[in-house]
Order: sequence, then structure tokens, then C-alpha cells
Amino acid sequence: MAEVKLPRGFQAAGVACGIKADPLCRDLAIFASQVPAVACAVFTQNHVCGAPVQISRARVPADDCRAVIINSGNANACTGRIGLDHAREMTSEVARLLHCEPKSVLVCSTGVIGQELPIERIRSAIPACVAELDPTASALEHAAQAMMTTDTVPKVASRELQSHGQTLRVTGVAKGAAMIAPNMATMLAVIMTDARLDRATADSILRQAVQRSFNCISVDGHTSTSDSVMLLANGEAGSALRDAEALAGLQQAVDDVATDLAQAIIRDGEGAEHCITIDVRGMREPGDAHRIAKTVAESPLVKTAIAGADPNWGRIVSAIGYSGIKVREEDITLRINTTLIYRSGAPVEYDAGLVSEQMRASRDVHIDLEFQHGAHDARFWTTDLTAEYVRLNSEYTT
Amino acid sequence: MAEVKLPRGFQAAGVACGIKADPLCRDLAIFASQVPAVACAVFTQNHVCGAPVQISRARVPADDCRAVIINSGNANACTGRIGLDHAREMTSEVARLLHCEPKSVLVCSTGVIGQELPIERIRSAIPACVAELDPTASALEHAAQAMMTTDTVPKVASRELQSHGQTLRVTGVAKGAAMIAPNMATMLAVIMTDARLDRATADSILRQAVQRSFNCISVDGHTSTSDSVMLLANGEAGSALRDAEALAGLQQAVDDVATDLAQAIIRDGEGAEHCITIDVRGMREPGDAHRIAKTVAESPLVKTAIAGADPNWGRIVSAIGYSGIKVREEDITLRINTTLIYRSGAPVEYDAGLVSEQMRASRDVHIDLEFQHGAHDARFWTTDLTAEYVRLNSEYTT
Repeated sequence: MAEVKLPRGFQAAGVACGIKADPLCRDLAIFASQVPAVACAVFTQNHVCGAPVQISRARVPADDCRAVIINSGNANACTGRIGLDHAREMTSEVARLLHCEPKSVLVCSTGVIGQELPIERIRSAIPACVAELDPTASALEHAAQAMMTTDTVPKVASRELQSHGQTLRVTGVAKGAAMIAPNMATMLAVIMTDARLDRATADSILRQAVQRSFNCISVDGHTSTSDSVMLLANGEAGSALRDAEALAGLQQAVDDVATDLAQAIIRDGEGAEHCITIDVRGMREPGDAHRIAKTVAESPLVKTAIAGADPNWGRIVSAIGYSGIKVREEDITLRINTTLIYRSGAPVEYDAGLVSEQMRASRDVHIDLEFQHGAHDARFWTTDLTAEYVRLNSEYTT
Repeated sequence: MAEVKLPRGFQAAGVACGIKADPLCRDLAIFASQVPAVACAVFTQNHVCGAPVQISRARVPADDCRAVIINSGNANACTGRIGLDHAREMTSEVARLLHCEPKSVLVCSTGVIGQELPIERIRSAIPACVAELDPTASALEHAAQAMMTTDTVPKVASRELQSHGQTLRVTGVAKGAAMIAPNMATMLAVIMTDARLDRATADSILRQAVQRSFNCISVDGHTSTSDSVMLLANGEAGSALRDAEALAGLQQAVDDVATDLAQAIIRDGEGAEHCITIDVRGMREPGDAHRIAKTVAESPLVKTAIAGADPNWGRIVSAIGYSGIKVREEDITLRINTTLIYRSGAPVEYDAGLVSEQMRASRDVHIDLEFQHGAHDARFWTTDLTAEYVRLNSEYTT
């Protein structure tokens, strides 16, 4: 991992507390701001959501956020009233050590659904984790590792920008959806910046960034009970960003960090042999373009065809047809890796062997769908569906 | 296959015309009524639909239907104007030989998407197929075989009932969704009865039967371009069914035949090792129950867990949560194969090893979800997701 800096005033730490089977494996992370930060967050839309989601959701937006505590190996979801108590206790223990209110600490958990959290181990490890809080790149890497479940690499991204004499930094960390153990089905991200923002602006920036990044990826279409993305802005870089240009610059940096993290999740998708980018262009509504892209991305037939390096365009065109968006066949044009395959509703002659060779040779596949309905576009990322994905997810672990 | 009778006045035939690679493999079927029959049909809701769907849709409901012609090995979908000409020509050739109008003949095609139909071979074979039309069980079996793509067994079902002195028969034939070759993604069924029905009644009976059978199954959630279910009623059993009891009896027979065929499709699902029945009970609206059942049925995580004989209830409960139907965790109770796993929003102690053993030993798995929201239930059938499914669908065939 390249050296990635935290924004000014932020610290991180990751330790092993014994939730995961391997006692040396980091599974408890804290991200902290030395001064109160503005915090906002977006959470899973699953009606069944983990205890940490319920606790954190009630605490944002905030002006005085000091830390986020995250454990991996156990999602603390579907655990009833005791789960809520455990999530609250995690935050109050951090708050005690950082000399702040429990409501200034947010909490996330990721891992197995439906098992009680080993709260004693977490409670015992929190003081050591707080003691290790540090602004260095290696502390950030430790924290990113402590969030991982079946991820194979930690995921961090950062951008620096100049804005009216200030140097602003945006740094984010994420874990992906990975599900070998019973119910590892969670995507978590924390994005930190030293920009000075008010709550409404921070919230608006986060929502836009999420819409363009995490909401545009899918590994298997199964929405988790614990998805959470948080933005912390502590203002340590200087005064508030007031003009539109400065805000647009910061929005771009947050978009870029979120997109880097979303793509890193796709690249680390379980059993994935191909990363698929789907562009849908020329729709009447932005939502229409997104929905078509998502439907194509989630079709098991499209995903298995790409696993087999098969430019099987009939599966793509038929997935468009059942997306729920009204389209006319004669308005569809399809390119795979820039090769024209289907134009205005009719197949064209192309070298299928050559396109297949390209697909076999590269980890990246590009599906480009062009319509004549309007001016709105969407981009979506997904993985292929391999026998290895099935193997990983059907291993008996209960 | 058990001996299954056609209703009075119906005949069937299936021949090999050379669309499929194996020249001995049957790939052209005709179902015919010796007298004009009432016909109605329901078709795929995919906005991209095959030429035969477009032609047949315009011809129902009808009072004077004489035949349905079906070819396998080529879906005649995404084939533009020439595809429509070919579909029309198939019906006019049958009509010429049966001395009726082309509009009295319906047409279906199933197989590869996007390839021009070998119309000469079909045209040459139609006279032989018409000459073989016969009311016997073996003729019906030949026709059922000629509809198959990657199905491993022909699918027929039949019911006989007594109604005010009449003996009524309902016989149906179907093929499943199976997709080894580029784009075999089609479910077709023809249901025939000798009951005397008017168009409106026939249509109502078919729609209700489809709602309870074919609309309650999913192999991979990918709606095909060619799905078609047709009901032909030729009245050869006697006079019209006028009273409610007689109609209810016939409705039940058509429901049963459609459900048998739908389950046969699931049992023959590609690579499937388990057939999963999902019951959702106690919802406010029938649509809510159906949507929750469908969401659970289509989750790749639920399907891979069952492939691994893993009673992974967290995946089931979290799928409920993202179905789009508002539910409260504390209102969910889950049983797998009658074992209570999760009650009123909290896990219960159960013998996971024993449930797993049961799942490993039996091809059938039952997921029972009980809510406290109302009085509406739904039942849905699906397959598990195995590495074999992925292998079958990722083999390079373009």
C-alpha cells in the first residue's frame, strides 16, 4: 500500500482483540479527531439493520464527533436488545478515554450476523487501541486492516487539493462485501477531511459522493444489514470553504476518494476474475440510466458469460428489457470493449473470437450502452460470477 | 414419463427439422385442435421480446385458434424485420395445411437470441409435422421433446375432472429456462382443455393459474425475451361450464397442471441440487408476501448457502430486509424444514448440524417465514446456485 496521509488532526489505530479466530488478526479499529468534527453518514436501506447502524444513525449529523470505533468478525446484527447495549457500550468506553460524550462517538460492526458480540474482549482492548492512536500512515494501515473480513487487501484512498491558500486533504478507508463466513455482507467506509464544513454542506457532499460511487457498485445485489459510510470534517486546514469553486473542488476530491474505494471493493470482490464497467448513455432520466446499468450488472447470466470471456450480447440486451425502464429495441446500441456488437436494435457483424480473446486477456471489461432517449448517463461497476464465488459462499460454516 | 392423454379433439406432433446441431434431435412441435378453440395467452414482460411473441400477442384472445407451432434451438429474438417475416411464415404454412387463416395459428420459438432462423428447414419440415399430428400419448411426448433446449426431461402434466356429467381434461406441456448455449432463456407452456369456455373466462382462468404457478418460480431472475404461456379450450367435452362450482373445479385443474409444470421446470433447473419452496405467511397484502418470497428466492447468498447445505438464516433475514416491503425485525419468524431458527426477531437455540444434515440428505428445502402483519400468504419455488450452474453458463459458446 502506498503511503497515505491522514488529514490534519486525525489519528487511527487497529489492534487484535480476539473476535476473529486468529488471535494475531487485527479486528478493532478507531478513527479519531483531536478536535470536535462535523460528522454525517449514510446507512444501509435494509429494514433489517445492525445495532451499530441504529445507534450511529441517531447520532448524525453532529458538530462534535470525536471518533468512530469499528470491529470486524461480528456484525452485531439481528441480536436484539443486548446488541444495542453492546454497541452503546463500545462508544461509551471510547468516550470515557477521549474525555467526550458517548454521543460524540460513532460505531460500526461487520462480520457474522446473529451472534452475540464478545463484548468483554472488545472492552478490554479499547484502552490499548486508544493508546495506539497515531497520525502516521502505518497507523492508518493497521486500522484499515482491522476493518477487513474476507477482503484480501486493505482499502485506502486520498486526495490533496489547494484551495485559496489552504491545503485540504481527504482520506478514506473502506472494507468490501465478502461473505465466506456465515454472513459477512457489509460495506463500510470512513472518509476524513481537514476541510472546515458545516453539517448541511458535509451531508450534501457525502450524499452526492455516495450516489456516484458506492451506490454504483454491486457484487451480488444482496444489500447488507450494516452498510455505513461516514464523513468526518474537523476544520483543521483553516477557515470555512465559502465560495462555490472551493466547494466544487472539495466535492470532486471526496467523489474521487469514494470512487477509488468503491472500485477497490469491486477489484477485491469474492472469486472475481473480471471487473466490469457498465456505461449507460442517452437516457431521459438519470434514474433510468442507473436502473438499466444496475439490472445488467446484477444479471447472473451476464456475469457468468463474462466469467467465460463470452461476448454474449443477447443476455445484455434481454437484461435491459426487464429493467423496468421502457426502451425500444431499435434505440439500443451496444459496444463491448469498444467493439460495436449491436446497433439500433440489430446485430452487426463482428469478430466474436477477437472480443473473447480481449476479455480473456484483461481483468477489465467495458460494456457501453448507448440510447437515443435523452441526455442522462450513468456508470456502474460490478464483478463477474465465477464458480469460485459459489464455492466461497456455499462452504458450510454454520 | 407416465402416459398422459390429450383432451378430446387435440393432437400433437414433434419432428426433427435440423435447427439443433444433432439432426436426430426433435426441434419442431405442433399442437392442434380439430375444431376452432378459444385461445388466450400471457407473454414475457420484457420490453425486448422475440418476433413470435409479437406475432402471437396480436392474435389472442381468439375464438378460432387451430394450432400452435413451436421450434427450439433458435429464439428468433433481436432479429429485426426478417424475424417477424419468419414468424409469420411459420404460421401461414401451418394454416395452409390445416385449411384455416394464418391468424388462427400461434407461434413460439426458444433458443439462441440474435440469430436468423433457418426458415427453409422449418418450411420443409412443416408438412411432415402436420402429417404426424396424432392424439396419442407418444405424439404428445414427441411434441414435448421438440420444445426442449437444455431441459433434461420433457415436461407434461394432466388432470381429469367430472363436472355435472361431463368428463373434462386439462393437459399441459412446458419447457424450462436452461441456458448453456448463448441465450437459451425461455419458459414456454401450452395448456389444452376440452372444456367449453368463452374468451373472457379462459383468459381469467389462465391469468389466475399463471399468477399462482409460473409467476412463482425463478431460476436466476433473468426474464427471458420469449416466455409464453397459452391456453387452448376447444369445447369438445360438451356444453359450456356455467355455474360457479364447475368453473372453480376447472380453475383448480388448470392451477394444478400449471403448478406441476412450474415445479417440473424448477426440478430441472440448470445445475440445481436443491429445489427450494419458500412460504411467506401473514402479510398485509398478497403482493407483499410475493415480493418477500421472490427477493429471498433470488438472493445469490441464500442460494449458495443452500447449495452448501448451510442453514444460514442471517442471509434469509437480511434478504427480507431489502425486499422493499416494510417489515419489523421483531415480526419475523423463520423455520427451515420445520425447525424453528428465528422467532419474533431473535435467534433461538437449534441444532444447526442436524438441519444441515437434513438439507444434505434431501433434494427439497422448505423455508417458512411467518409474519404478524395480516392474512395474506405466498408460495414461491426456486433452485440453489451451484458451481455447476456457473460452469454451464460461462462456457464459451459464441
